Amino acid sequence: MNHLSFPAPVDDLHDATLAQRLQQVLDNKTKPVGALGRLEELALRIGLVLGTEAPVLDQPQMLVCAADHGLTARGVSAYPADVTGQMVQNFLAGGAAVSVLARQHGIALTVVDCGVARELVPQPGLLVRRLGAGTADASAGPAMSAAQCAEAIANGGEIVRALPGNALLLGEMGIGNSSAAALLLARLTRRDIDACTGAGTGLDAAGRAHKRAVLREVLARHAQATAPLDALAALGGFEIATLVGAVLQAARERRVIVVDGFIASAAVLVAHALEPAVVQRCVAAHVSAEPGHALMLRALGLTPLLQLDMRLGEGSGAALAWPLLESACRILREMASFESAGVSRKDGAPSLPEGTAA
Amino acid sequence: MNHLSFPAPVDDLHDATLAQRLQQVLDNKTKPVGALGRLEELALRIGLVLGTEAPVLDQPQMLVCAADHGLTARGVSAYPADVTGQMVQNFLAGGAAVSVLARQHGIALTVVDCGVARELVPQPGLLVRRLGAGTADASAGPAMSAAQCAEAIANGGEIVRALPGNALLLGEMGIGNSSAAALLLARLTRRDIDACTGAGTGLDAAGRAHKRAVLREVLARHAQATAPLDALAALGGFEIATLVGAVLQAARERRVIVVDGFIASAAVLVAHALEPAVVQRCVAAHVSAEPGHALMLRALGLTPLLQLDMRLGEGSGAALAWPLLESACRILREMASFESAGVSRKDGAPSLPEGTAA
Repeated sequence: MNHLSFPAPVDDLHDATLAQRLQQVLDNKTKPVGALGRLEELALRIGLVLGTEAPVLDQPQMLVCAADHGLTARGVSAYPADVTGQMVQNFLAGGAAVSVLARQHGIALTVVDCGVARELVPQPGLLVRRLGAGTADASAGPAMSAAQCAEAIANGGEIVRALPGNALLLGEMGIGNSSAAALLLARLTRRDIDACTGAGTGLDAAGRAHKRAVLREVLARHAQATAPLDALAALGGFEIATLVGAVLQAARERRVIVVDGFIASAAVLVAHALEPAVVQRCVAAHVSAEPGHALMLRALGLTPLLQLDMRLGEGSGAALAWPLLESACRILREMASFESAGVSRKDGAPSLPEGTAA
Repeated sequence: MNHLSFPAPVDDLHDATLAQRLQQVLDNKTKPVGALGRLEELALRIGLVLGTEAPVLDQPQMLVCAADHGLTARGVSAYPADVTGQMVQNFLAGGAAVSVLARQHGIALTVVDCGVARELVPQPGLLVRRLGAGTADASAGPAMSAAQCAEAIANGGEIVRALPGNALLLGEMGIGNSSAAALLLARLTRRDIDACTGAGTGLDAAGRAHKRAVLREVLARHAQATAPLDALAALGGFEIATLVGAVLQAARERRVIVVDGFIASAAVLVAHALEPAVVQRCVAAHVSAEPGHALMLRALGLTPLLQLDMRLGEGSGAALAWPLLESACRILREMASFESAGVSRKDGAPSLPEGTAA
């Protein structure tokens, strides 16, 4: 029996002493208390995850997991399923949004074939961890077997263990995977599927109505699949299951986890159902225009950094928000305190700064 | 009579052909149409300002204008006026939020003493363009003379003319300047002063009530000062007037202008009243927690990129949003098109990507 069978639990990060010290450091910076708003909350969170008052984000890793979905046979997406593999190729060639944004910010990009229908040629930057040529059609049976689901989770853990750095950004690609995310949201938070379902890559009103009807049918078929892992296997997503494993492992290692959009958040939702403390390590990069995403973030207790009406996935939102995390760390590390800068406080006590002429 | 007396007008950027070409470029990128949301709008705006489908932001300049305010004698701020000069020193020493964030993003920082009460020793990075040792108390008379106001505007124009690059980020420092901004907002948009007035650097409820009463008195005293330049001179801010000149000049040169918080936006409000087309060049970096700022942005027709409950000024919000502008340009320049990447479109027509195995 190897270590994968008994993974370490995800510790509660609660550390009142460190939280208090971080708050003091922030309050002593040369600005009115709280004037940097949510950037200060972000600094506090990153400090707690990395266990320090002077956090340094090191070698950030964007992990883009890709797979196809059998449910696309039911016409739940505006794009043909071929696009999954084509986009993986585009990620690797550097032409996709996530490629461009990761390059901008010096974020290393790893793309994982978790089960794209059409196998890709081996190439640098591509990890092959295929569980099949796409999931099965979830409207006809479980999207994957319990064994496939467990293997995907183990894959995600292994991949993260091998990656350097202390920050993981979540990305994904899979035509049809906004359906899988909607199904997981509905099942794990007991919401009606209609509220969880949106246009995905761009369905019109009729397409959305059809998608909702199909998803309702899928949920009814798998009414017994209520436990997190049962729901994940039944409702699917090889890429989502792989991300669940990645999130759990990153959380165990106390990496900062930067959550992207609706589908990446669905992986966090499952991981959170298994190990609630994972969300303490998570930063929600943005809220997607896909309506279920706001519900999902609320269920996770996460407040998004950006609200830019994006709905692309890939990890594009996580990459876009990345410099804000860097800024939060630099505020902690590099800003002067009232004392060090000779700046007077709100309550008076003037102190003459060194460079001031008489 | 020199060229300052007859500055060139700010041209209307309306260019339907370029706008259409930019939109086509964006729509051909490998993503569903509109999936990058507000980042696409930003790309369109920057493309129009710089007049190209492949914009490159070059040598961004953060201009932080600082000055003191005579109105602080009336107790309108939570901090002592000495802090203006102390913070200027902190900007130059690299310890302030704007220093840290500008350094993070490779933004050059220029600090201008437009009239700090206590003169600073000359030092690298500091431009001295003083109009006095702080403005006069606006509750007792005009904050500045018409000549001082004109000189400050000319200074701002001259400073920008001498700066390299094609992007200007606006920053400011001045204890008491949220009062000046509130007064300009109330006067130029004919709003009640109460809705325009907030806590500034951190007044309590009693402090805010006092500030509102004082500002109401100031507005009544200068009831005749309704034209933009008259209002600016009466209600004040050497740093705001200098920024007005900087905004006008940057707009004439078709630089991208990144607007920071409440006070920087007040300068844009005045510039817009003089030359409406300036806002076509402006990007609102964020919306401040200072309540008047949202009203001001609405009056300017600008939608903020970030909403992080910040209320610091200095240019901190502009610096924080900067990488989003860079991202928007890179999306235009570096993302693949459906054709170049061999990705199928929504409407079908599958195309086999090069790297796909048979």
